[in-house]
Amino acid sequence: MSQHAFPPRTTTAEIELGRTLQPKFGPDGLIPCITQDAHSGEVLMFAFMNAESLVHTLRTRKATYWSRSRQKLWMKGEESGNTQEVRELRTDCDQDVLLLKVEQRGPANASCHNGYRSCFYRRLADLGAAAAGAPALEFTGERLFDPALVYKRP
Amino acid sequence: MSQHAFPPRTTTAEIELGRTLQPKFGPDGLIPCITQDAHSGEVLMFAFMNAESLVHTLRTRKATYWSRSRQKLWMKGEESGNTQEVRELRTDCDQDVLLLKVEQRGPANASCHNGYRSCFYRRLADLGAAAAGAPALEFTGERLFDPALVYKRP
Repeated sequence: MSQHAFPPRTTTAEIELGRTLQPKFGPDGLIPCITQDAHSGEVLMFAFMNAESLVHTLRTRKATYWSRSRQKLWMKGEESGNTQEVRELRTDCDQDVLLLKVEQRGPANASCHNGYRSCFYRRLADLGAAAAGAPALEFTGERLFDPALVYKRP
Repeated sequence: MSQHAFPPRTTTAEIELGRTLQPKFGPDGLIPCITQDAHSGEVLMFAFMNAESLVHTLRTRKATYWSRSRQKLWMKGEESGNTQEVRELRTDCDQDVLLLKVEQRGPANASCHNGYRSCFYRRLADLGAAAAGAPALEFTGERLFDPALVYKRP
């Protein structure tokens, strides 16, 4: 399926202030996607979609991305069981980014392959120290599953 | 300033589960950045940083991006006055995305150049209809400023 599943890009005025989704897929056919917990607002992950994964997401209401590393359609949770039920899809002013609001489902209620609820499980401990050249991270949140037990690596 | 302002990338284990910020700047020197309201959790915008803008952000605590269209450092709000005070900086599992939590400041309390609080001011009205080929957007939130009065275009 090509990106022609979606309306072509028109004018800046239409793209920015119009009422038709005209997503901008890059030269690689991909558009960035931010995924946020529909209830808490927590940013869970960041990934890419191609037209096929966007159509799959809309049809199934299950967040489906394009895996750049595996070069294949990637229904989130297809291996771990931790799926994402899509509640809302937004786009930004110039329609070159998508924002999904989802309900995280499944055994661990976790989005990250490292076992955390969100991929953004670390923050700078001290912005000032980081500016001075010591960018130390601290962990936030707990590990909800052990990746070694969930993913069957060849 | 080069990206060597930050520690070099090491091993997958260190990058994903370590305690040192090792941001991945792409071949173009840029890393994607998601910016979220520190209080409400609303995703405000998505932009890019290079090493210089990340250092500037950490030093000044004011969100500073790299403008790809203007090819220059872009301190958010330098023209509109709507700045972003950085409260927290996170990175994701593989450290190729940043997440800023900010307090939006300034006259309009708006992030988007179109005058909205968030760039993500439109959502699909109906996911099912969109899947069937009619991807209509609806507006959320109100316009907080008139871009024509705020930006002086040449």
